Amino acid sequence: MNPTRNHQIVLASRPTGEPGSENFELRSGPIPEIGNHEILCRTIYLSLDPYMRGRMSDAKSYAAPAAIGEAMPGGTVSEVLASNVDGFSAGDIVVGYGGWQDYSVSSKGAGLRKLDPALAPISTAVGILGMPGMTAYTGLLNIGQPQAGETVVVAAAAGPVGSMVGQLAKLKGCRAVGIAGSAEKCRYVVDELGFDACLSHRQENLAAPLQEACPDGIDIYYENVGGKVLETVIGLLNPFSRIPVCGLVSQYNMTELPAGPNLLPVLMRAVLTNRISIRGFIVWDFADQEHTFLKEVSGWLKSGKLRYREDRVTGLENAPEAFMGLLKGKNFGKLVVQVGEDPTTDAGRF
Amino acid sequence: MNPTRNHQIVLASRPTGEPGSENFELRSGPIPEIGNHEILCRTIYLSLDPYMRGRMSDAKSYAAPAAIGEAMPGGTVSEVLASNVDGFSAGDIVVGYGGWQDYSVSSKGAGLRKLDPALAPISTAVGILGMPGMTAYTGLLNIGQPQAGETVVVAAAAGPVGSMVGQLAKLKGCRAVGIAGSAEKCRYVVDELGFDACLSHRQENLAAPLQEACPDGIDIYYENVGGKVLETVIGLLNPFSRIPVCGLVSQYNMTELPAGPNLLPVLMRAVLTNRISIRGFIVWDFADQEHTFLKEVSGWLKSGKLRYREDRVTGLENAPEAFMGLLKGKNFGKLVVQVGEDPTTDAGRF
Repeated sequence: MNPTRNHQIVLASRPTGEPGSENFELRSGPIPEIGNHEILCRTIYLSLDPYMRGRMSDAKSYAAPAAIGEAMPGGTVSEVLASNVDGFSAGDIVVGYGGWQDYSVSSKGAGLRKLDPALAPISTAVGILGMPGMTAYTGLLNIGQPQAGETVVVAAAAGPVGSMVGQLAKLKGCRAVGIAGSAEKCRYVVDELGFDACLSHRQENLAAPLQEACPDGIDIYYENVGGKVLETVIGLLNPFSRIPVCGLVSQYNMTELPAGPNLLPVLMRAVLTNRISIRGFIVWDFADQEHTFLKEVSGWLKSGKLRYREDRVTGLENAPEAFMGLLKGKNFGKLVVQVGEDPTTDAGRF
Repeated sequence: MNPTRNHQIVLASRPTGEPGSENFELRSGPIPEIGNHEILCRTIYLSLDPYMRGRMSDAKSYAAPAAIGEAMPGGTVSEVLASNVDGFSAGDIVVGYGGWQDYSVSSKGAGLRKLDPALAPISTAVGILGMPGMTAYTGLLNIGQPQAGETVVVAAAAGPVGSMVGQLAKLKGCRAVGIAGSAEKCRYVVDELGFDACLSHRQENLAAPLQEACPDGIDIYYENVGGKVLETVIGLLNPFSRIPVCGLVSQYNMTELPAGPNLLPVLMRAVLTNRISIRGFIVWDFADQEHTFLKEVSGWLKSGKLRYREDRVTGLENAPEAFMGLLKGKNFGKLVVQVGEDPTTDAGRF
């Protein structure tokens, strides 16, 4: 049954360091009413992603911070309940940015894309066929530019971005080396996803096993974590290697700079002597590639060349705890909160 | 008069930290004789450049280290004394890599390019019309990609690379902000070279004046020094800014990493949130642009749109001290050692 009130998880306060439950608040209000050129959506799935930590802060970044007292922002898969916009009708399944709440309103359908539930499970629209998948795809292909025979390293390898990066690297004829947070995740990354090797970043010394896993050095380091992994990678980077930077999850909760020594000169020396390219990006820098991405990746999904794994949590009220766990690597696969009933699948019933 | 022996400055030992006179040794030997397919050259000018510090070490880099007991490597302008190679004749003036010595032998003319002394003073072939000028030109245009109205920052602004970067930035319609080692150099950079502003890096706090000099932030930071300048620049970098990296002179003599905090996360956060591109290069990565470079820059030189300044030292025996000073910023302009008589100019006589 649809809730008769709109429940929201709002940003109660900005965290210092690790977010805690006190930074979130569950509120409820009336279900919004729509006017001209508006669409009312009911949230089915809410995506939880590391970038949300950035929105909780008011430090300058590529996107405006979330507002205190407002629903946390987030990608969603929703059902259209009512529409005053041509092209959208009640019953449509759409992906957009509905936020951490039961109901959302879109003006003119901006940011909404209709899904065909026959093509793939609709929750993939916030996973392998959505923002995380496209982040992996565009960053690896445009900035990483993998060539057959090269070695690609990626951390958070069991997560939605890392798992896609490694599988794409394999499709391009590269050696794929993952780094993940547990032996179980590493087994999944190698046995199920087909990476050539996967190392746990929880071991004391990552340098020796990483060197062993990359006998020909590293040509592409797809950066999504920063910290110790980056520091370890630097010494193995090959001439003309590339580093697409889409995230730095290990440093999002940092409240002060790490102690010395200062490793900035180490990175810069590697950049100079090995002519390395480093480039930060967000997925929407490559928005014009969305159609190609969807076509190519849904093809690979259908033919079984790509796999993905979801870590599903049920109930909007559990989103804060799940999100706090995400920042510590507790999830195993793409973290998705089922907020409401999924009409496209029997399993989607509560 | 030409010397009757070949004097060489050889690498006597590898320095730890700052090179000292004990790392160099003046030796003499017979003037080499040439065989088939060889050319004998007499050195007129020897170029001294910061990259040579890298060659004195045996740490892995883009070029092999100089060998102990061999003449230090270096760019030279020379006169051909005898040639067994078609296309080269006695009396030709050539630019090449003759090294720190009176005489050198080229096999098959590899690495030699003939100069037309009527076009520009021949010493410019190791300066604005040579490796330093082309390093500035290729790095700024290919990696920096300056657009009119943008702000370009470069250090060592009175030196051969920095002065060219700023002047090219002005020709492209950018705001050019230099950083240099003294008030006198700053005056030259602004009054003679036409930069919009120039700051001394010897002042205590560079951040406030740099921010004032860059009211619209920094779009291109042309990196040739590293260290404090880089650390100060990071906070002013604009979205989509670019950092070509051709040198890190401030860290070449470093014997241990600087104390903390570790600023690597600060750079990486800027890269991510501002989608910054950083790319290391050496000039020969763009070797195919040499013809375009020579044509365009010699045109600008002739028309007075570009200026340059030489810091000339006389006598090969003075090269080590001049080089040690270069690493501390003691030179003012392109540092060139006049090793032998320049037949193209009266002023070239000893």
